[in-house]
Amino acid sequence: MIRFYNGKVLSFEAGLKIEDKELWTDGRNISYIGPKPESLPEFEREIDLKGDLMLPGFKNAHTHTAMTFLRSYADDLPLQEWLYNKVFPEEAKLTPEAVYLFTKLGIMEYVSGGITASFDMYYKNDEYILANRECGFRTVICSALNNFDADIENIEREFLKFNAPGDDMVGYRLGIHAEYTTSMERMEYLSSLVHKYKVPAFTHISETKAETEECIGRYGLTPPQLLDKIGFFDYGGGGFHCTWFNDEDIELFAKKGLWAVANPASNLKLASGIAPLEKMRKAGVNLAIGTDGPASNNALDMFREMYLACVTQKHICEDAAAFNADFALEMACKNGADCLNLPQCDDLSVGKRADLTVINLRMPSMQPLHNISKNIVFAGSKENVRLTMINGKILYEDGQYFLGFEPEDLYREVNAYVKAEMKN
Amino acid sequence: MIRFYNGKVLSFEAGLKIEDKELWTDGRNISYIGPKPESLPEFEREIDLKGDLMLPGFKNAHTHTAMTFLRSYADDLPLQEWLYNKVFPEEAKLTPEAVYLFTKLGIMEYVSGGITASFDMYYKNDEYILANRECGFRTVICSALNNFDADIENIEREFLKFNAPGDDMVGYRLGIHAEYTTSMERMEYLSSLVHKYKVPAFTHISETKAETEECIGRYGLTPPQLLDKIGFFDYGGGGFHCTWFNDEDIELFAKKGLWAVANPASNLKLASGIAPLEKMRKAGVNLAIGTDGPASNNALDMFREMYLACVTQKHICEDAAAFNADFALEMACKNGADCLNLPQCDDLSVGKRADLTVINLRMPSMQPLHNISKNIVFAGSKENVRLTMINGKILYEDGQYFLGFEPEDLYREVNAYVKAEMKN
Repeated sequence: MIRFYNGKVLSFEAGLKIEDKELWTDGRNISYIGPKPESLPEFEREIDLKGDLMLPGFKNAHTHTAMTFLRSYADDLPLQEWLYNKVFPEEAKLTPEAVYLFTKLGIMEYVSGGITASFDMYYKNDEYILANRECGFRTVICSALNNFDADIENIEREFLKFNAPGDDMVGYRLGIHAEYTTSMERMEYLSSLVHKYKVPAFTHISETKAETEECIGRYGLTPPQLLDKIGFFDYGGGGFHCTWFNDEDIELFAKKGLWAVANPASNLKLASGIAPLEKMRKAGVNLAIGTDGPASNNALDMFREMYLACVTQKHICEDAAAFNADFALEMACKNGADCLNLPQCDDLSVGKRADLTVINLRMPSMQPLHNISKNIVFAGSKENVRLTMINGKILYEDGQYFLGFEPEDLYREVNAYVKAEMKN
Repeated sequence: MIRFYNGKVLSFEAGLKIEDKELWTDGRNISYIGPKPESLPEFEREIDLKGDLMLPGFKNAHTHTAMTFLRSYADDLPLQEWLYNKVFPEEAKLTPEAVYLFTKLGIMEYVSGGITASFDMYYKNDEYILANRECGFRTVICSALNNFDADIENIEREFLKFNAPGDDMVGYRLGIHAEYTTSMERMEYLSSLVHKYKVPAFTHISETKAETEECIGRYGLTPPQLLDKIGFFDYGGGGFHCTWFNDEDIELFAKKGLWAVANPASNLKLASGIAPLEKMRKAGVNLAIGTDGPASNNALDMFREMYLACVTQKHICEDAAAFNADFALEMACKNGADCLNLPQCDDLSVGKRADLTVINLRMPSMQPLHNISKNIVFAGSKENVRLTMINGKILYEDGQYFLGFEPEDLYREVNAYVKAEMKN
């Protein structure tokens, strides 16, 4: 049992609320939230928060973690040159061992930035999962069926393997990479799995204008409408990016209860556009938020994403009141958990998993204490993360990592790979 | 003498360059940059950089430091409601003692974020300067002449007082608050001072569409063209924001060698727009960058500003290659110094002031080391600041402040002010 005392708890149970309370964990779950009781049990450790804030950790609802190997490898280039001359050739050479290494690098960044779960889409999933399990990081894979997959039945095998009952550290949801990389035959195959297992499905969707227009050219329908037509969304799910959604796409997502996962940093940097999040919010679309991969972002930083979601919506709506910061915080902490099918991690309350982040409020950017949640969204950054706990285990605290390896050793290994294997 | 060894030096002497070199200081200046010599002199302290990077500290080229008292006081509101119901009433009550306190809070944020100089526009300048002097922070004031000044001759007195020869820790440049807050008579008075002292002048300019259109309505000219007509820019200077510059404004600024100071975070959050920085860059306008005040930003974070400058330009140009990160870094470190009339602080080279920031590269967001400058702009944040030195003195190192006071004491005082004096 760990006791956090002398601090504040942020929860979403009845709207965003911050209260002076203790929080105890019992190994995996939150066992108590409330005032200091008259007598205390024995604790393994008691942590004096000194007024700092606990919140339900950030859920990164769309990422490609192992792409840390491409961080700052090729920036400030036209999109096609970046993708075809830089990203694809290096990805083609990527070994399973490299996915394992660079996933660990990404997990370091997650826990030092207060992120407690990820919704990841990449490949070489056995090595990806091994890295997550060794670190104690919670992750859900989204399959990425596309035209280059040699063995499409692997998706069904992985779906069964990574959804083992009783284990919620690893999950697996069905998905295609994107309409523009997947034939109709393969999209229909994925849709058949959706119906066989009665589960939701996800995909990159309407990320760029060109992709959206080309889909209309091919099928006479936007990507959301096309996928809906083939039954892809019959059991829920949603899409990543959603940059070029029109009003009918928004209505469809709202009506079917689908998730639109925003990736504002990636969309700006690759000049893909700004998704109409405020419009979606008003229409009642379920909204979560993610970093996308570090090749296009380049940081795995949910502070940045929350901030950008707010300010880009204020910009496109020409209204400083649009897209309230408190809503962005709810997207990042709570909605993301629901999108990942992790309702047991969506809030700080008794019986939920102890997946939490401690924000250090004793730093200049968090002062004065007019409004803590606005401070976090509009002035917060990774520097404010004091501690990250997942499934009751502390994985990061005060600059120290508890992931089972030495950071310096990992840096040495990733740079050795970069030097030996990549063209610079 | 302090010796930094086992690290890298970023300089702009012949384009952005990063080299493995030592750097020594002699109390105020940089006394040596180069390889480790065969014999070493005695040092007061030797700092093992462990591979980390030194760069010329960030210059915040437009800010209102003491407005930390309004950070997160009133966000997500329509612009006019925010300004007239929240900001102005609280500013009217602000005491000199509060300016002193909240300036210190801002300075804490500057040094913990690698910022080594500021170009500040506010009021109660004696207390503002006292706080800067006590902390050892380098600052240049821009006067803010407007219609509410009771004693307009104070500007000339302050201009002489704060430009004392031989002291470059404090400076003072002439300016008006903005065209929309300053009568023609007063703008002409400021212009007369410009001609009397043959010095540059600055102002908030073309920040919002409404302000720009109203100026055209009043005078038949855009703000830059109006001020140019009355001789305001006859000895150089420039403007803050520049969001709504048209092609003629850009041409004027380029031709006269004026500074356009970008404030991308503030412009997005207040829904003011996105300045055409890439167009200005191509036209040869001098560009620097600043945070604006913490009431509108809400962070005093040059990482955020560099990042936003790049990605917002990629967005409006619809070109992922627009506005290279290396240029943003040069704006923040070097150009800002020239804008503030601090050429002695614009680079890391022998004889320049020892105003520098050490970036910790041994953190996940800075790995792998494909490209350090892109890592800083696209993935860097305040967490990466290991040390900040101004005028040869270390003011921040590894989370510790050396500003002459205890952070906890200041936090207590600023929150006491907020509780006693402000309406919440």
